[in-house]
Amino acid sequence: MAQPPIRIVVAGALGRMGRQMAEAVQTDPRLALAARFHRPGTVGDGLVSRDEALATADVVIDFSTPAASADLARFCANRGGPGLVVGSTGFDSAELADIADAAKTIPIVRSGSFSLGLNMLIGLVEQAARALDADDWDAEIFEAHHRHKIDAPSGTALMLGQAVAGGRGVALDAVARRVRDGVTGVRPPGEIGFAVVRGGSIVGEHSVSFCADGELVTLSHAAGDRIMFARGAIAAALWVAGRPPGQYDMRDVLGLNARA
Amino acid sequence: MAQPPIRIVVAGALGRMGRQMAEAVQTDPRLALAARFHRPGTVGDGLVSRDEALATADVVIDFSTPAASADLARFCANRGGPGLVVGSTGFDSAELADIADAAKTIPIVRSGSFSLGLNMLIGLVEQAARALDADDWDAEIFEAHHRHKIDAPSGTALMLGQAVAGGRGVALDAVARRVRDGVTGVRPPGEIGFAVVRGGSIVGEHSVSFCADGELVTLSHAAGDRIMFARGAIAAALWVAGRPPGQYDMRDVLGLNARA
Amino acid sequence: MAQPPIRIVVAGALGRMGRQMAEAVQTDPRLALAARFHRPGTVGDGLVSRDEALATADVVIDFSTPAASADLARFCANRGGPGLVVGSTGFDSAELADIADAAKTIPIVRSGSFSLGLNMLIGLVEQAARALDADDWDAEIFEAHHRHKIDAPSGTALMLGQAVAGGRGVALDAVARRVRDGVTGVRPPGEIGFAVVRGGSIVGEHSVSFCADGELVTLSHAAGDRIMFARGAIAAALWVAGRPPGQYDMRDVLGLNARA
Amino acid sequence: MAQPPIRIVVAGALGRMGRQMAEAVQTDPRLALAARFHRPGTVGDGLVSRDEALATADVVIDFSTPAASADLARFCANRGGPGLVVGSTGFDSAELADIADAAKTIPIVRSGSFSLGLNMLIGLVEQAARALDADDWDAEIFEAHHRHKIDAPSGTALMLGQAVAGGRGVALDAVARRVRDGVTGVRPPGEIGFAVVRGGSIVGEHSVSFCADGELVTLSHAAGDRIMFARGAIAAALWVAGRPPGQYDMRDVLGLNARA
Repeated sequence: MAQPPIRIVVAGALGRMGRQMAEAVQTDPRLALAARFHRPGTVGDGLVSRDEALATADVVIDFSTPAASADLARFCANRGGPGLVVGSTGFDSAELADIADAAKTIPIVRSGSFSLGLNMLIGLVEQAARALDADDWDAEIFEAHHRHKIDAPSGTALMLGQAVAGGRGVALDAVARRVRDGVTGVRPPGEIGFAVVRGGSIVGEHSVSFCADGELVTLSHAAGDRIMFARGAIAAALWVAGRPPGQYDMRDVLGLNARA
Repeated sequence: MAQPPIRIVVAGALGRMGRQMAEAVQTDPRLALAARFHRPGTVGDGLVSRDEALATADVVIDFSTPAASADLARFCANRGGPGLVVGSTGFDSAELADIADAAKTIPIVRSGSFSLGLNMLIGLVEQAARALDADDWDAEIFEAHHRHKIDAPSGTALMLGQAVAGGRGVALDAVARRVRDGVTGVRPPGEIGFAVVRGGSIVGEHSVSFCADGELVTLSHAAGDRIMFARGAIAAALWVAGRPPGQYDMRDVLGLNARA
Repeated sequence: MAQPPIRIVVAGALGRMGRQMAEAVQTDPRLALAARFHRPGTVGDGLVSRDEALATADVVIDFSTPAASADLARFCANRGGPGLVVGSTGFDSAELADIADAAKTIPIVRSGSFSLGLNMLIGLVEQAARALDADDWDAEIFEAHHRHKIDAPSGTALMLGQAVAGGRGVALDAVARRVRDGVTGVRPPGEIGFAVVRGGSIVGEHSVSFCADGELVTLSHAAGDRIMFARGAIAAALWVAGRPPGQYDMRDVLGLNARA
Repeated sequence: MAQPPIRIVVAGALGRMGRQMAEAVQTDPRLALAARFHRPGTVGDGLVSRDEALATADVVIDFSTPAASADLARFCANRGGPGLVVGSTGFDSAELADIADAAKTIPIVRSGSFSLGLNMLIGLVEQAARALDADDWDAEIFEAHHRHKIDAPSGTALMLGQAVAGGRGVALDAVARRVRDGVTGVRPPGEIGFAVVRGGSIVGEHSVSFCADGELVTLSHAAGDRIMFARGAIAAALWVAGRPPGQYDMRDVLGLNARA
């Protein structure tokens, strides 16, 4: 017999991601959109108050603001639920402490990016880096973005660099080779190289290559549109429902973190 | 203080892989080439008898024949060591039973391909297939080989298909889509597609793409030359030295198999 | 001194491409949107009659219907201009004859796809196929599209196959290898292979590889969104303004066709 | 009826390329290996004197030294033939003048790289750069080489940059963006970007991408082994036989240069 759908409340409902989440939840048969709220007291136009919304929820998906998310986490912890999926970014340390504190009582999945594919990539890269001897396998990170991006390498490319460095037990800063130009000398073992392309309307491409004598392993991700974030948040909501208290990330959702 | 080098004996020393292994062992500071033998009684020209060779070995690397490898495994088990790295292929069931029996007494790494990169790829593909919902993520396997290859898809492409199917808990045969031509209809969820390129002198390329709405994860391997097999066999020898009895494969060497 | 902008009239103005064209024309400083019309007599809401519109035009961009485009071509030929950029598809032979006839009096660029990139790719592929000896360079065509595409290979992949065959002076049907499965035998020289991927929301990727012993040339195109068609139509309008009568295609616009 | 094979003389016959050329000529049914010489007077072991060799030749393939090649060109011009394929590199200006002078009397194909694929790539890139508006199409050059390469970008990547700049009628130095790191700002139109990867035993990969809003054209080359140079030299020899006097390069051989 089919499971009853999980009842989702969307917080930050008037934001761009809030609107997209509500739409995505409504088209997923495993979920029911129980209620939407924006700020605690904003009602009407399909929005209810936070209190009313929470009373109907198995899980809240919250792309709002760091302050609002921290407040929501405290509030839910105090009332003993529901679990949260938090996509706000830019938390300060007090807000992070609030989230961590709430996670002693309720389960919270928090992530800076809900792309399942990118989180998968990062997890696989770390494993490959741990297993493949850095003396034999040169790690090179490539990223390409549209012409309007104003910094390089991308934050995601640096996270991939951290994943390689972490898998190898070294500090990225000590081994990163961010540019190559002119007489570079022979490539030292252990170096983690970066290569950057900017052009057109490329949404975002990342790859990590491990290059040995006579063979090459490349792990890559290409982003198309924001729908990928909604899919990841839904996967997180399905995963967190009924989970024990704790703070989780997307690699937990993907089963890539070993936990005791 | 540096570890003393592991003493390697190369069996099947007059075969192509045997010669390449001896050369690779000699250039690796972590290893010492203790002896080489071809058949039990062939001596001279740098070869010693099997008995003499085994007396000096921490690990034997054996690319010979299925019969010789099965015999060597029994022999080493009877004398209580050393451990084996077995790269012969084409075993019959009696020979496999001999190997399994010997593995109760000595540690044996056996593999049909010692490419670290390909074994890594297969392990990562299985994990990704397990974590990414088959209803959202379409799996497509691509392979390219030189113009002289006479079958399609490649054996490795089919192994990658098995890894996807295994990760999803389905049978490959039930979901494989080996060709697409003409009016194919909409792609059904769960299908595992294959695409094949043949041309020039391409040594071997394989990739598995997981394609969702708005994002794409691709895991790939490119082979260059046979040196990759020697590197994998050396990694196996380093790993198996001092290991408890048991039959292992390259995914154990890479730390990709969970074992109790 | 800057050129005065070319005055563009958009026909089929209420269609999806018509709306997109009007928007694209308005944001291009080299162009002025002189008028829009939908059917000859539909007026109001920013639309004027065809007669009124044509009086203001240097070039008409027309994504409407085959019948409407053929009629427009006859009408413009009779009045001695303006030139046309025609993006309607699905013409019957009588309509094509009307267009050809009109092109004796006015310049007309007509194309089934206004993507500059794809037309460039097709032109380069034909040149490469002409220059690279088919006995040495195996041609392989790869395409990937979203899961909703119901046929294979794509029409564009077949056009690329025609470009290879044309460059080599052979018939595509005689050398196409549309699928490979099972025991295929050695790849014969001259064969043109196809490989197909279907998954996720891939908009459209095409590549042609020429594979020789020891080297590989690959020419590829990736499509993102329909804005590429508007850009191509604008390039065609800029090119056709003031051009002598004749029927042209996008390869003329790109300077890839040699004409006496 | 089959053409009689073209009689090839290999100069510099004891060098690495000389040996490879002799082997390649002998396995090609369109060619006959007429003679081999090393220095004018070295004879024996299959080598004949230069005088004797030239008497039998339709074309000489010469991978020797700049001085020897310049001398050979003068000598062949004085005796009224045969035509030359010259692969020596590192000529000084006096030697280049000798070659140019000889080319008034005999046909000479000279190139720094006989890879047909790379020369094809360079020719196609220049055409694409000429046809695609630099304001819309961002050009990005990518190259990857093995870990032992000590400079970046590769000479070939810079040649590709020259091809883009030449096609656009600008100077590469004025628009090259060799590295991107930190806050780069928005990518300016017209820039030609470079991205560099170093790792493993990658022989050499180059690609040029033209990136517009919503579409992307990529032209690429992958090198495998030196056999590609022999194939190109043979193509040059077949092309130059019976050609009028003049100095030619591989783009002439490929039919990519327009000549009056």
